[in-house]
Amino acid sequence: SEIFDPTEHPHRRYNPLINEWVLVSPHRAKRPWQGQVETLDEDQRPAYDETCFLCSGNTRINGEVNDEYKNTFVFPNDFAALKADTPVFATDDPLFKMATEQGESRVICFSPDHSKTLPQLNVEEITEVVKTWQSQCEEIGKTYNWVQVFENKGAVMGCSNPHPHGQIWAQQQLPTLVEKKQNAQSAYLAEHGTNLLQDYAKRELGSQERVVVSNDDWVVVVPYWAAWPFETLLLPRFAIQRMTDLTSQQQVSLADILQQITIRYDNLFNTSFPYSMGWHGAPYDGEAHSEWTLHASFFPPLLRSATVRKFMVGYEMMAEAQRDLTAEQAATRLKDASSLHYKEQIT
Amino acid sequence: SEIFDPTEHPHRRYNPLINEWVLVSPHRAKRPWQGQVETLDEDQRPAYDETCFLCSGNTRINGEVNDEYKNTFVFPNDFAALKADTPVFATDDPLFKMATEQGESRVICFSPDHSKTLPQLNVEEITEVVKTWQSQCEEIGKTYNWVQVFENKGAVMGCSNPHPHGQIWAQQQLPTLVEKKQNAQSAYLAEHGTNLLQDYAKRELGSQERVVVSNDDWVVVVPYWAAWPFETLLLPRFAIQRMTDLTSQQQVSLADILQQITIRYDNLFNTSFPYSMGWHGAPYDGEAHSEWTLHASFFPPLLRSATVRKFMVGYEMMAEAQRDLTAEQAATRLKDASSLHYKEQIT
Ligand SMILES: O=P(O)(O)O[C@H]1O[C@H](CO)[C@@H](O)[C@H](O)[C@H]1O
Ligand SMILES: O=P(O)(O)O[C@H]1O[C@H](CO)[C@@H](O)[C@H](O)[C@H]1O
Repeated sequence: SEIFDPTEHPHRRYNPLINEWVLVSPHRAKRPWQGQVETLDEDQRPAYDETCFLCSGNTRINGEVNDEYKNTFVFPNDFAALKADTPVFATDDPLFKMATEQGESRVICFSPDHSKTLPQLNVEEITEVVKTWQSQCEEIGKTYNWVQVFENKGAVMGCSNPHPHGQIWAQQQLPTLVEKKQNAQSAYLAEHGTNLLQDYAKRELGSQERVVVSNDDWVVVVPYWAAWPFETLLLPRFAIQRMTDLTSQQQVSLADILQQITIRYDNLFNTSFPYSMGWHGAPYDGEAHSEWTLHASFFPPLLRSATVRKFMVGYEMMAEAQRDLTAEQAATRLKDASSLHYKEQIT
Repeated sequence: SEIFDPTEHPHRRYNPLINEWVLVSPHRAKRPWQGQVETLDEDQRPAYDETCFLCSGNTRINGEVNDEYKNTFVFPNDFAALKADTPVFATDDPLFKMATEQGESRVICFSPDHSKTLPQLNVEEITEVVKTWQSQCEEIGKTYNWVQVFENKGAVMGCSNPHPHGQIWAQQQLPTLVEKKQNAQSAYLAEHGTNLLQDYAKRELGSQERVVVSNDDWVVVVPYWAAWPFETLLLPRFAIQRMTDLTSQQQVSLADILQQITIRYDNLFNTSFPYSMGWHGAPYDGEAHSEWTLHASFFPPLLRSATVRKFMVGYEMMAEAQRDLTAEQAATRLKDASSLHYKEQIT
């Protein structure tokens, strides 16, 4: 009988972090595309835009004035999805169960330069972003159990302002996906006596099959169970539970690896590569949580080019995530992309 | 202390069908939108398009010729994500677990009329679609445990051809989301001795708060735990596990309710309303599955208008689904939409 070929045969892969599967249909990459074409985000932007709510010194929609900031700048989201003063209330009806949530949302400007994105900043500038994430987690983690650091990059990812920025949403209760990861990591530790993501990082570093970039402290892989075409997972090569535990040396090496992966993303299709990225680590609940490993995920929508994306729709919404190329194929393409940003290449 | 107001205070609601939560931030609906604007899909299309791969009598990309069909037409997907002849193979490494999958994908044309969509067909024509779903499940369910019936409508939902059509993907293993629903319904039956979705339908019919449309056999609600702004759940008012168990009377009443809900969707923003919809019911595994209730879900992306959608991105991908308006507010707006399709209204 025929031998299994991962680049030919439909198969499902298991995501041990969230206990879900993804359907891989590699032969389907050949399908022609006649559907929606995204608009390119390639406008040259000025370094300062007087109409931008995030530029240094500008006035926001609520009348507040931004600092004349030089590196990063944090302010409360003017339309926060979470608020500190929400009254505590919950119901426990099995079919109509709810609980109010307390929290807050902040915006982090990554740079005063309106024309740049993360991969166009230098390592010193990205280190300032890392330090800001860290000090924000430090501060907000004193009040809230969960601090979600994330960035939506590109209009196709719902980002409504191209000024380089990310967000932080903090809350008391663990969000659904975080709860899943906590359960999976705890179960793995209980069963194997070791840390799930540290074991995984070692295996990936050993095989190199899905490694995109690495440095002494960090490694980026297309995870074996990736759902989005060019999804990546950024893992530490040392034991660490939380953003707040980074040493100053690890802040710099993290900035380096962030620059490496985001440059390769931009170079894959010679476009400002859209994605949502975010950080997961142990909750700020005062427990040790040795089951956790701090990590970041990048979920980019593009599939074939700067204008043709993957749609997670019908089957994916009703059944499970589905992908066309394999994780190994995606990793190879990212690894083979240039390490010099395409806008800086002399052609 | 302040009293909880669901239209003001951020809260989480629990989805008992999949054991996940959604964050509701109703006060956030006031936020201005400066981001991506979708293109309108409002071209007048001819009833027949000689370049369409789905029109009656036309030749498809692989050279096959479509039947001169009068009602519905089913053919194998030319770029199927699942295939019948995949070799059986699996690995059980906890970090690199996979299994090959056998299955098939088919396309169902809903009507030979290229210019129409589901809400523009009459009840007799929609009944033909229901009968086709039923006979397909009957046939495919003999070979495969899971038969996923779904429709992606609109370019924004990854649909690459506007000709009215849906899809069927069948496979041996239960997909991730279906497995979750099976577990939740089984646990509910074990704990309460009753059927989760039948209990839920009765409660919703009693309160009417989230009911959009209903007839003697069916009810459509914006579920208490809806994630997408105008998500709905179509439930039977009688015990039924599978599509294949519909009587001919229930086929007609189902066509009626499908027409009612899709007309209201189109009328909400006077646009051909995009969505993914799909059917879930008991697997075709030869067991009784009294825990299951057959149901359909509609997941539409639009939020504010025909061109402004909800993005499930950063926070939603990293933490949990988030919505701005409440399920009750969405239900009221859908219920208040006209029952006569806007293209047939004399203005
Ligand atoms: O099969 P189609 O219509 O070409 O493809 C569409 O539906 C599929 C099933 O939901 C998705 O996997 C694709 O991303 C989407 O473009
Ligand atoms: O807060 P923003 O940037 O206006 O909004 C964006 O990110 C949020 C968090 O992922 C999403 O809920 C919104 O749908 C998206 O448009």
